[in-house]
Amino acid sequence: MSIAKVVVALGGNALQESGKPATAEEQLSVVNKTAEYLAEMSVKGYEMAVVHGNGPQVGRILLASETAAEVTPVMPFDVCGAMSQGYIGYHIQQGLREALRKRGRNIPVVTLVTQVVVDKEDPGFKNPTKPIGAFYSEEEAKRLQAEKGYVMKEDAGRGWRRVVASPIPKKIVELPAVKTLWDTTIVITAGGGGIPVIEKEDGSLSGVAAVIDKDLAAERLAEDIDADILVILTEVEKVSINYRKPDQKDLSVLTAAEAEQYIAEGHFAPGSMLPKVQAAVKFVKANPGRKAIITSLYKAVEALEGKAGTIIVS
Amino acid sequence: MSIAKVVVALGGNALQESGKPATAEEQLSVVNKTAEYLAEMSVKGYEMAVVHGNGPQVGRILLASETAAEVTPVMPFDVCGAMSQGYIGYHIQQGLREALRKRGRNIPVVTLVTQVVVDKEDPGFKNPTKPIGAFYSEEEAKRLQAEKGYVMKEDAGRGWRRVVASPIPKKIVELPAVKTLWDTTIVITAGGGGIPVIEKEDGSLSGVAAVIDKDLAAERLAEDIDADILVILTEVEKVSINYRKPDQKDLSVLTAAEAEQYIAEGHFAPGSMLPKVQAAVKFVKANPGRKAIITSLYKAVEALEGKAGTIIVS
Repeated sequence: MSIAKVVVALGGNALQESGKPATAEEQLSVVNKTAEYLAEMSVKGYEMAVVHGNGPQVGRILLASETAAEVTPVMPFDVCGAMSQGYIGYHIQQGLREALRKRGRNIPVVTLVTQVVVDKEDPGFKNPTKPIGAFYSEEEAKRLQAEKGYVMKEDAGRGWRRVVASPIPKKIVELPAVKTLWDTTIVITAGGGGIPVIEKEDGSLSGVAAVIDKDLAAERLAEDIDADILVILTEVEKVSINYRKPDQKDLSVLTAAEAEQYIAEGHFAPGSMLPKVQAAVKFVKANPGRKAIITSLYKAVEALEGKAGTIIVS
Repeated sequence: MSIAKVVVALGGNALQESGKPATAEEQLSVVNKTAEYLAEMSVKGYEMAVVHGNGPQVGRILLASETAAEVTPVMPFDVCGAMSQGYIGYHIQQGLREALRKRGRNIPVVTLVTQVVVDKEDPGFKNPTKPIGAFYSEEEAKRLQAEKGYVMKEDAGRGWRRVVASPIPKKIVELPAVKTLWDTTIVITAGGGGIPVIEKEDGSLSGVAAVIDKDLAAERLAEDIDADILVILTEVEKVSINYRKPDQKDLSVLTAAEAEQYIAEGHFAPGSMLPKVQAAVKFVKANPGRKAIITSLYKAVEALEGKAGTIIVS
């Protein structure tokens, strides 16, 4: 059998332990543990690219920038996303290099700063829902709305926050570099779902304030590089229906048709399991005969061998 | 003649116009202009990698982080460097893609998050001199010194600042990826001189608070990828002796031996022209027959054709 090409999407718990201080040092120690599991996948012979989330990290970058507005200009959200790719990518490439090296595998690992094109007509831009950055009073929120054109929404009694669109990823701008590196290098790319850019009428790119779902970005990458397996890592070992109810049922295999029915029945939480299942379904429908896996970091190697996790097939 | 391989080091004025607000938008507009000149070099057939500075940008990232210390943990300086690579690299790769595209050259451009190994015994660590981040009162400075072990120095009557080492770059960790991409892609790498890391006794890498000179990092890269030409861009068209004196003499050609004599005579300002001339001399001494160029962004293409700038030869 030829070597399988795998795109791995890392969930938030692979980067940061909840309840621990949100320092870079704590995060690096979590990333170093995550790297051990990724290195094990490489040892088993899988070729891979890594896509990671950035929600808490880009949130803190923006929060620091907004808090320091009087001493240095606030960074636009696309730039904050680029900064989070540098930050998180640095940690992953350092940790993964070491985890591989300890196993005698001197495979280069590198992070590509990655732009992802979204459609400027994406319906998400008409009705932004993704909260980012600091909490504001109603008065400050109204002022930001007027001065900067931000869309501000009240957030569950905790104050007002800016909300941005979560558009669908259409094209990975730096895909050629991912392809060139693939055979020799583990590439970390489309971090945080990618820096969102729109294609203007003249064909030039321009950053926008938006959050691209990282599982959908990983799916886009998996299609584009013709991956054999899309692995979406999260906190639970398997996808469940009737989640956290007495009749919860964990799923070992799920067809695209079953998954779509469960989606229609509302089994998966938006912003949580739903986009993962949607990404998995999209991948296997576009690539019949290929598979997607949703599982935990700790079960990833077993799941690749068909012994754990939820496998989604066309 | 075969295609010449060029490493270009971009100075601070290629990223930001002095006197303009330090916003990301202003910076992007400067970067877009810089990209036009880089694209012209590509049109002339030169293959290139781009190394850029990050002084003002990483300074503002750290300043924002320190200012927001009460709401979110302060980022270590190596992480701030990684963030600046993401930020600046994103702008350059977006601007350069467009400048190339307008010229009908669809060459991929990508930024690699880049670690650069420095020697933990580098004398710079014993006597740090490079100021970074915010200004503090003497009392705050003493507290930071005691609590965090920072080295704090009084800065020309303006207050106290943290100082870090400026060690010599020894090895570019992500060099294999630069080499793999070279033939097809314009790579932006070692931004800000690279994220400084030391190699620990067990061979693992660990980030340190330090500033690597970006011209020396570009020189390291030029040696390692066997470049034909190292181009160091700055604000002036030519290197001068007796700079800004009545007998100022602009130099069109400079041998390594002449350059070393002028260095010994103190003609070049530390932190300004000196590291550029040193990097140029190091490159041509290591590669007799090759050349280094020091010139302005605007004269770069002419200088490559031997019609402008200062050419340094062995």
